[in-house]
Amino acid sequence: MINTQPTVTIWNEYRQEQTDPAVQAIYPHGIHAPIADHLRHQNITTHIATLDQPQHGLTPERLAQTDVLIWWGHRHHHEVDDAIVTRIHERITLGGMGFIALHSSHFAKIFCQLMGTTCKLKHAVRGEQERLWCVSPTHPIATGLPERITVPQTEMYGEFFDIPTPDELVFVSSFDNGEVFRSGCCWRRGRGKVFYFRPGHETYPIYYQPEILQLLTNAVQWAAPSGLQTVTYGREGRDW
Amino acid sequence: MINTQPTVTIWNEYRQEQTDPAVQAIYPHGIHAPIADHLRHQNITTHIATLDQPQHGLTPERLAQTDVLIWWGHRHHHEVDDAIVTRIHERITLGGMGFIALHSSHFAKIFCQLMGTTCKLKHAVRGEQERLWCVSPTHPIATGLPERITVPQTEMYGEFFDIPTPDELVFVSSFDNGEVFRSGCCWRRGRGKVFYFRPGHETYPIYYQPEILQLLTNAVQWAAPSGLQTVTYGREGRDW
Amino acid sequence: MINTQPTVTIWNEYRQEQTDPAVQAIYPHGIHAPIADHLRHQNITTHIATLDQPQHGLTPERLAQTDVLIWWGHRHHHEVDDAIVTRIHERITLGGMGFIALHSSHFAKIFCQLMGTTCKLKHAVRGEQERLWCVSPTHPIATGLPERITVPQTEMYGEFFDIPTPDELVFVSSFDNGEVFRSGCCWRRGRGKVFYFRPGHETYPIYYQPEILQLLTNAVQWAAPSGLQTVTYGREGRDW
Amino acid sequence: MINTQPTVTIWNEYRQEQTDPAVQAIYPHGIHAPIADHLRHQNITTHIATLDQPQHGLTPERLAQTDVLIWWGHRHHHEVDDAIVTRIHERITLGGMGFIALHSSHFAKIFCQLMGTTCKLKHAVRGEQERLWCVSPTHPIATGLPERITVPQTEMYGEFFDIPTPDELVFVSSFDNGEVFRSGCCWRRGRGKVFYFRPGHETYPIYYQPEILQLLTNAVQWAAPSGLQTVTYGREGRDW
Repeated sequence: MINTQPTVTIWNEYRQEQTDPAVQAIYPHGIHAPIADHLRHQNITTHIATLDQPQHGLTPERLAQTDVLIWWGHRHHHEVDDAIVTRIHERITLGGMGFIALHSSHFAKIFCQLMGTTCKLKHAVRGEQERLWCVSPTHPIATGLPERITVPQTEMYGEFFDIPTPDELVFVSSFDNGEVFRSGCCWRRGRGKVFYFRPGHETYPIYYQPEILQLLTNAVQWAAPSGLQTVTYGREGRDW
Repeated sequence: MINTQPTVTIWNEYRQEQTDPAVQAIYPHGIHAPIADHLRHQNITTHIATLDQPQHGLTPERLAQTDVLIWWGHRHHHEVDDAIVTRIHERITLGGMGFIALHSSHFAKIFCQLMGTTCKLKHAVRGEQERLWCVSPTHPIATGLPERITVPQTEMYGEFFDIPTPDELVFVSSFDNGEVFRSGCCWRRGRGKVFYFRPGHETYPIYYQPEILQLLTNAVQWAAPSGLQTVTYGREGRDW
Repeated sequence: MINTQPTVTIWNEYRQEQTDPAVQAIYPHGIHAPIADHLRHQNITTHIATLDQPQHGLTPERLAQTDVLIWWGHRHHHEVDDAIVTRIHERITLGGMGFIALHSSHFAKIFCQLMGTTCKLKHAVRGEQERLWCVSPTHPIATGLPERITVPQTEMYGEFFDIPTPDELVFVSSFDNGEVFRSGCCWRRGRGKVFYFRPGHETYPIYYQPEILQLLTNAVQWAAPSGLQTVTYGREGRDW
Repeated sequence: MINTQPTVTIWNEYRQEQTDPAVQAIYPHGIHAPIADHLRHQNITTHIATLDQPQHGLTPERLAQTDVLIWWGHRHHHEVDDAIVTRIHERITLGGMGFIALHSSHFAKIFCQLMGTTCKLKHAVRGEQERLWCVSPTHPIATGLPERITVPQTEMYGEFFDIPTPDELVFVSSFDNGEVFRSGCCWRRGRGKVFYFRPGHETYPIYYQPEILQLLTNAVQWAAPSGLQTVTYGREGRDW
């Protein structure tokens, strides 16, 4: 129904890749780079915005032209300006922009605000295997994927993950030590859609895996604006 | 992501239109006809199947080539053969065919089987107005529609409607006498998707309304197969 | 399973009742008074806290002893101190306190934070009738109630109501002009439960209606702490 | 709000325990016996009904006096009479009886009818460990339980489990080989509530574990009738 490809902006803290050799070794051009490369190969226009740019690269103009915002935050969540968080929140809930939070972005200010919960979880870095099982086989984000995706090495996240019950739970992960995690979750927030995706870590090459890249491309398509053309609020006779 | 248009089959009892002048006056070529015309104008291949055809027109070959089955049943639900109901159910849950139940099809055998409930409701024919309000503005089925659709004359259906809680509740109706109804509901059943849509009555020209036809086209697109390419079941080593 | 009665605190702005004769005429002792009276008749210990008390009456000690917090806010949402909002949010998500938001409290800071959305809606004061229909007949909050509750005179709220999809939708309202509204909604937030209830207006005697009072008592019982005894978060070996 | 204890009936095929020494060794008085003993210790009146009794022990009188029906079926699902299945279905959807399906009862006729899906899954008997993680910590069925329950030896069930999306997902399991499963699931069906619980196997002593017995007692309390006193259906002026 939507004939044109969405326009994506990937936001990245982009500091560890410039200072930490272990991260540079895996993501020399930034953890956003393999995702951006893959999206561009699909003819999806993709911009990059980073923490240290003016306004974190998220000017009103940039957001107005973004259909889906992908977010990677890790160690500097608190440095994101509250006014920019408010701007993103409005662009999602009132403007219909989609939002995809990756891995450690569960603690990003904008994600916590969208959820309304603490977004706490259990975690451990043990370099173990993760298996993602699809529990919603008809979901658009699962399109073309195998029943199970194996990530050879990852950081573990465990339940209870303090998020609102997902509107759609698409993937559940298990880890070598027996923990489980709701690792692919969808919510609707106002006129915008939100997807949380757990896999991804700055020292493992997870964002080079073909299934992961296909899944993220599916998520971009799902999160792109859809639905009613207008939604009005307020007092009768004034706004509607 | 799905580049080709889905193939639709509309199933209709198609008896009242041949015997009842009041129905003939509104739907001279069958209540399916304006829907089929509209879908075909959108380049969606659309077949018609009816109760009095051999196998009700739903041969294994026809179902295998159907991406979305639209169903209109009203007075002859009990005449639908149980073996055909089983065939449809398997085509949905195991094969991924979408299913759209219209109005009085809430009591169709296949719909009741998919729901697992009695599908009972309150009803009254008083020729009153219905207003459909969208409560899920980002939903694909709402794409391009106004916030409220008004149906000038309709039969009333009232809550409690004995269905499972919808996976996605898209539209809620109100009627002149104050009743409400969950009138646009989505469920996932195995590899298939199901949409129930309340409006439609054999003596009111509801299926000629442009918003209703656009909504049904959206529903066809939503219900078309998506998701995992294969799902396997059974004992380890034998089936997966 | 919970043998003891929950302890309730009702928070009220409590200004209009002291200054506006039209409000005083209906709720001379505060809009909280008939609710508190009813709960106390059910042997539920009920405290009152108001905007103009120190810390808005919501000291750490008071919150620690509150199982369910009922909230009435209307014109002074912005005067509620952000630090108190954070304190309430933690008491709900981490401590398990239940939260019930009444009517115009949809715009209370704490409710908006719990929802993660704008909580906008349509509204009009026309003194019309409201009918509440139960769409979840097994829900504990519906226990003992009739299928439909009629509120003779009320302010209208209309969809789209910008809330996350409720975990459980219990009541849907219709109004004389044909609007509908999801008027009884449940969510889970961390270890706490949240209920939004639409009816109630400072110039209509809605909180004296027996069905409304029974419904709110049911909501208190539902929102009281339940579930796991402990939930732990954080790094392995440190916190769990 | 419900002051009296529910009355439970446990239905069991009760054949393997009489013929298979490996099963007899674990459950000499039937797999229902430890559950019945535990419920009776909680002052919950508990009846036993079995496949080989007249009407499978499920006479209209017995069902009318049952608040919650617990079901264990395994190898003889097809021997359950369709008329009895219909009787149970009506008692749940129209009468409000709760229903708890245990383990291999995912293929019981009544469970499949309530779900509307195929209820297929993956399985393997490898005697491995199962860990149940609570993903809904406020849920009544989780009350008093630890964050994780470990079952030392069990049969594995794996996703995709072809059930409708649960209204409430309470527990997710992982197994030694990395599979996951939605192992504690709630649905509402008409006036009745349904809980599926995965653990339990005829050759492992799972139903003697204290946490499992507490969880099942919680499930009985949750599934007991609640909500509206009456629900009416049909044509205006005749039924409502």
